[in-house]
Amino acid sequence: MNIGIIGSGMVGQALATKLASLGHSVMIGTRDSSKLAEWLGQAEHPIAVGSFAETAAHGELVLNATAGGASLAALELAGVENLRGKILIDIANPLDFSQGMPPSLTIANTDSLGEQIQRAFPEVKVVKTLNTLAAPLMVNPGQLADGDHHIFVSGNDAEAKAQVSAFLKAEFGWKNIIDLGDISTARGTEMLLPVWVRLWGALGTPMFNFKIVR
Amino acid sequence: MNIGIIGSGMVGQALATKLASLGHSVMIGTRDSSKLAEWLGQAEHPIAVGSFAETAAHGELVLNATAGGASLAALELAGVENLRGKILIDIANPLDFSQGMPPSLTIANTDSLGEQIQRAFPEVKVVKTLNTLAAPLMVNPGQLADGDHHIFVSGNDAEAKAQVSAFLKAEFGWKNIIDLGDISTARGTEMLLPVWVRLWGALGTPMFNFKIVR
Repeated sequence: MNIGIIGSGMVGQALATKLASLGHSVMIGTRDSSKLAEWLGQAEHPIAVGSFAETAAHGELVLNATAGGASLAALELAGVENLRGKILIDIANPLDFSQGMPPSLTIANTDSLGEQIQRAFPEVKVVKTLNTLAAPLMVNPGQLADGDHHIFVSGNDAEAKAQVSAFLKAEFGWKNIIDLGDISTARGTEMLLPVWVRLWGALGTPMFNFKIVR
Repeated sequence: MNIGIIGSGMVGQALATKLASLGHSVMIGTRDSSKLAEWLGQAEHPIAVGSFAETAAHGELVLNATAGGASLAALELAGVENLRGKILIDIANPLDFSQGMPPSLTIANTDSLGEQIQRAFPEVKVVKTLNTLAAPLMVNPGQLADGDHHIFVSGNDAEAKAQVSAFLKAEFGWKNIIDLGDISTARGTEMLLPVWVRLWGALGTPMFNFKIVR
């Protein structure tokens, strides 16, 4: 599948590396391709680099892996004409580092970044997921407790959520995905970040995840 | 032990019933004792009823089980003179039902109810815990997956957190308690409520909890 990944930080690189290794045609979008030279030089599988617009146009499926504070601007550059009708997997969190560590959120409680993106791009099928754990675990959940832990999907389009869930199961090996409801449920998963950050501090590692025990 | 429980709703009643059954001298505080008559008539073990002030004075250990929006006012009525130097286990969440269901939070992100209580009562040792799951599970974690799930403690006084953790293990059978850090980490656990509420909707039951998988 042609996959476009908007954002080339740690999350974008982890997703691109994994998806390229699975044989997908991956383009990663950046405003500064020079900073990716070293990483691309070490890549075992070909990964294309493009502008945000080229990346969005390339993807049959598009992933938002930008920093939350930059997401709306990056998606504007990607262009509604390149996103229209597509599924956009939104992994970004609206973290606010302006007051130092640990970060708070720039958006919380009665709104979410997922909703803001959906409102800005009503013709895009936004599915919020994977935003509640560290990048290495996103693409390889089985390395932790044989995958016995959870992620969540939030979105207004039931078919899009089903497609994304099937994709995450088939490509990354996710076993446990809970559909929380419409895109407003992204408030809940984005508001997991404050405790996630504190758990990182308490546990001394970001390699953990939430399991919903019933 | 003499235990005072401020607040007589579902959480306060569950805590009082369990702690009385364990032989503690429990007083439950309410502004309207008449509404507790039926419940007290069915209680198998004696539970005293008092004003908030009487209840705080009774407790060597005091629990805040009020609704979050009423907590500060209830604790003012309880009286600093009756709380000074004591451990206050804060279980309340600042839920905002003013816009209907699901609730949002009245305090979030850069502050928390736990911090507000600690600031209002600097001579009280506030320990935030038990606020991330349903009342029946607070007092009986073993009924779910044999207790293989987590709660958290937040507070500025390390010794108070250790005492509360020991109490929760001995009295209720908690096995897994993570110390997140100072009282500002209550932001994280209070901000778990929005996803908790949505999980209740998605799962169709409040009888679940978070496990931190490492």
